[in-house]
Amino acid sequence: MTNKRVLLASRPAGPVSEANFRIDEAPLPRPADGEVLVRNLWLSLDPYMRGRMSDAKSYAKGVEIGEVMVGQTVGEVLESRHPKMKVGDVVLTQLGWQLYGCINDATKLDAARAPLSYYLGLLGMPGMTAYFGLKELGQPKPGETVLVSAASGAVGSVVGQLARLWGARAVGIAGGWEKCNYVSEELGFDACIDYKAGAVREHLKAACPNGVDVYFDNVGGEILDLVLARANLFGRIVVCGTISDYNSTDPYRVRNWRAILVNRLRVQGMIVFDWKDRYGEALKALGGYFAEGKLHYRESVVQGLENAPRGLIDLLAGKNFGKQLVKL
Amino acid sequence: MTNKRVLLASRPAGPVSEANFRIDEAPLPRPADGEVLVRNLWLSLDPYMRGRMSDAKSYAKGVEIGEVMVGQTVGEVLESRHPKMKVGDVVLTQLGWQLYGCINDATKLDAARAPLSYYLGLLGMPGMTAYFGLKELGQPKPGETVLVSAASGAVGSVVGQLARLWGARAVGIAGGWEKCNYVSEELGFDACIDYKAGAVREHLKAACPNGVDVYFDNVGGEILDLVLARANLFGRIVVCGTISDYNSTDPYRVRNWRAILVNRLRVQGMIVFDWKDRYGEALKALGGYFAEGKLHYRESVVQGLENAPRGLIDLLAGKNFGKQLVKL
Repeated sequence: MTNKRVLLASRPAGPVSEANFRIDEAPLPRPADGEVLVRNLWLSLDPYMRGRMSDAKSYAKGVEIGEVMVGQTVGEVLESRHPKMKVGDVVLTQLGWQLYGCINDATKLDAARAPLSYYLGLLGMPGMTAYFGLKELGQPKPGETVLVSAASGAVGSVVGQLARLWGARAVGIAGGWEKCNYVSEELGFDACIDYKAGAVREHLKAACPNGVDVYFDNVGGEILDLVLARANLFGRIVVCGTISDYNSTDPYRVRNWRAILVNRLRVQGMIVFDWKDRYGEALKALGGYFAEGKLHYRESVVQGLENAPRGLIDLLAGKNFGKQLVKL
Repeated sequence: MTNKRVLLASRPAGPVSEANFRIDEAPLPRPADGEVLVRNLWLSLDPYMRGRMSDAKSYAKGVEIGEVMVGQTVGEVLESRHPKMKVGDVVLTQLGWQLYGCINDATKLDAARAPLSYYLGLLGMPGMTAYFGLKELGQPKPGETVLVSAASGAVGSVVGQLARLWGARAVGIAGGWEKCNYVSEELGFDACIDYKAGAVREHLKAACPNGVDVYFDNVGGEILDLVLARANLFGRIVVCGTISDYNSTDPYRVRNWRAILVNRLRVQGMIVFDWKDRYGEALKALGGYFAEGKLHYRESVVQGLENAPRGLIDLLAGKNFGKQLVKL
C-alpha cells in the first residue's frame, strides 16, 4: 500500500495551472508513538490555497516547492498509537492533499450530527468564518442590509442565511444566472446581483435601495469600490478575501478609500483562526440551525485526488457551485 | 459700519486659487430677538474646508457659490437680544469667513483657562479630533507604536503628544527638516520622518522597528500604502483626512487593501462631530494636560480676513506650521 500525494511543483505567476502541481507516490507513513495513521476521505478546496502557493507575505506561511499542498481533510483512523483515538474514529485534520497521513492530534467528529463532508464546509472553517465574521465584525442589526460577494460559495451562502436568521436583509453577488437563482430561491436571500450581467452599479442600487450597512467581501476588486460608494453611515466592511486578485500579479487598487472617512466605515480583516477559542459556540449555533432545517447548503464534488488541481483551478475561476470538495 | 465677508466665487478644479474667492462688503447684520451680534476675533483655517468648496459628496454639505465660506470662529458679543448672553461675552461660533454675524446660540468660552485662539485648536475641533480619534479608534496600548501623518499640524501634534502621555511610542511624518525638528524636539515625539527627504519606506522601517500598531492618518496617498505594508497584526488605522488628495481631481488608489485582511487591521473613519456628546470630557482632559504643561502647541497666524484665502492655500500646500489661524 502506498500513499498518493499532490505536491507544489512551482509557484504560479498569474493563474494557477496543472503544471504547478506534481502527483507522486510515497511509502505509507507509519505512526510513531502517540500518533494515528489516518486515511483521508474528503479534502476541502478553498480560495485561500492560492495564497499558500505564493511566497508573498500573507497571514500564514506559504507551501514550499516539493511540499504537500495544505488543506483541511476529514478522515478515519486506520491505526492508533494515540491514547485517546481508536481505529474507526472519524477526525478533522490538516493533512493536506494526500491519501494518508500520521498526526498526533485531531478533532473527533460526530458522524450522527451531519454528513462528514459538512465538517469541511457548513460546520467547518467556511461556516465559522461566516459566523464570526458576520456576528462579530459585521454586527448586522435587524432591518439592515447585508451584502455578500461570492454569495453562492461556502462562506457567502452561510453569511446571507445567517443575516436573514438574525433579522437583516440579505443581498448576494454571484456570477451567472444559475448561481443567482440558487442564492435567491434556494438560499432565500432577498436579492442577488449577477456581476457577469454588467451594470453592477445600477443593479447594486436597485437591490440595496437603502444602501449597504454590512458588506461581507470575499472578492475585492472593482465591485468593492462600487460598494464603498454605496455604504451607509457607520457601515461595516468585513474583508474576508480578495479572490478577484488571486490570479493577478498586480493587485486591484482601491479608489474609494475616502468613503471610509466620509461615512465613518469600520473595515476589518477576518481570519477564522483568530476565533478558535470560540469554535464550539459556532459549531453549536450552526449545527442547531442546520438541524432545524434553517441553513441550506450545497456541495460541489470532484472525484479523486488526482483531480484536486483541476478542482482548485475551477474554484478560483468561479466555476464551482457551493462548497468545493474532493472525494478521495 | 459694514461687514466684510469672503464668499465662494467658484469651485476649484484641482488646486485652490485666490480666484475661487470673492471678498465683499455687506451691511452690518442686526440681531433678531433671541440673537446676538458677534464680532469675530479669530477664524480657524482647516483642511476640511477644501472639501466644502467642492460639490462632491462628503460628510457635510458643501458651500454654495456666493455663500460665505464656512469656518469656526471665536468672537465677542457686541449686542445681545439673547436672554443668556451679554455684551462682552466671548463665544465659539460657526459664523465663517466674515467679520460680523448674528446667531441665536453659541458656546461661551473661559478666557482665563487658555488664550482664546486655543479654542480653535488645542482645545477645539482639532484637539478633540486627536483625542477621540486616538483614544476611541486608535486605542494605543502602552509600548505600542503610534504613527501620525501631518504631525506638526493642529491634529497630528496633539495625537503624538497624547500617545506619549498614554504610554505609547510616537512617530510623526512631516514635510521638511524644520517641521520634523519641531515634532521631535519641541513636541517630544520619539522620531519624525521627513517625507520630502525621500526613501520614506526605509525611514519608516528605521523609525518603526517594531512595526506600526496605530496609524493616525491625515494625509492618505502613497505613504498610506507604505504604512499598510508595515502595520502590525491587529493594527488600527484612523482615517482622519486625505489631504494629499484634496487638490487632485483623481484620488490616489490604494494598493495594499489586502493588508487589512492579512494583518486583521481595523480601519475606521474619524469625524469629530460624532463625539459631540463627549466634548466636555475632551475639553477637561486636554485643558488639564495643557495646564500641567504637558501639551505643547504652536500657531501660525495670518493677519486680516482678506488674507484668509492665501492662508488656506498655504495650509493645503503644507506651508503652515502648527494650527493655522486668521486674526481678524
